[in-house]
Amino acid sequence: MQGIHHLGVAVTDLDEAISTYETLFQAQLEHREPIADQGVEAASMLVGGSRIELLRPTEEDTPVGRFLARRGPGMHHVALETDDLRATLAELESSGAQLIDEPRIGLFGVEFAFVHPDSVHGVLTEVVASG
Amino acid sequence: MQGIHHLGVAVTDLDEAISTYETLFQAQLEHREPIADQGVEAASMLVGGSRIELLRPTEEDTPVGRFLARRGPGMHHVALETDDLRATLAELESSGAQLIDEPRIGLFGVEFAFVHPDSVHGVLTEVVASG
Repeated sequence: MQGIHHLGVAVTDLDEAISTYETLFQAQLEHREPIADQGVEAASMLVGGSRIELLRPTEEDTPVGRFLARRGPGMHHVALETDDLRATLAELESSGAQLIDEPRIGLFGVEFAFVHPDSVHGVLTEVVASG
Repeated sequence: MQGIHHLGVAVTDLDEAISTYETLFQAQLEHREPIADQGVEAASMLVGGSRIELLRPTEEDTPVGRFLARRGPGMHHVALETDDLRATLAELESSGAQLIDEPRIGLFGVEFAFVHPDSVHGVLTEVVASG
């Protein structure tokens, strides 16, 4: 595993959140894109050498929409990078981790999958193929 | 701001959480230490080039203990690194961010302070002086 690819943060107002990260942390907007099949509009912010992904749900009845209704805005998931997604997912499964879904294509066209938070002490963990 | 210094995760069983990160993500235990004035025992895990800090409260009536009681285990804070902590804190205050406390000394003897989650869309954000 190569480390943190990004930290995913659920927000209610994407413009305002982008502005907050720009003002407080000199973050730069790297990319902004609606991701229809995840029901979010995403903004990738570069903070120094790290990436924080701001996620605004486009509908209430989506994973991020339900998260916001239940817990309010805040950290939603952490994504770890791997150079071999299939091998990593197979190893995770053989170690007893519960995968939530099949690999999909997300922001920047990179492939990813989610590990259930119950397998990682409450942390929803995404595994992302290195770009 | 130089990027993510670590991601802080609240856990109930530190040994078990260390083992999970070792098994699932090939993490390496960098350092383990009780931090009396924060009421936690902390374990710093290296995952590739990133750091995840596992935090077990030593008492219920501590910030991490209350977080666990309210929300269960999961991501607690994100720490961003800066090469000039005093200047960064002054800039944050002048931008309207609410600081929680005066700078203190934490794990590895580095100085840090917290920005209130209300100032960062629900994300408890630590600012850490570069080592």
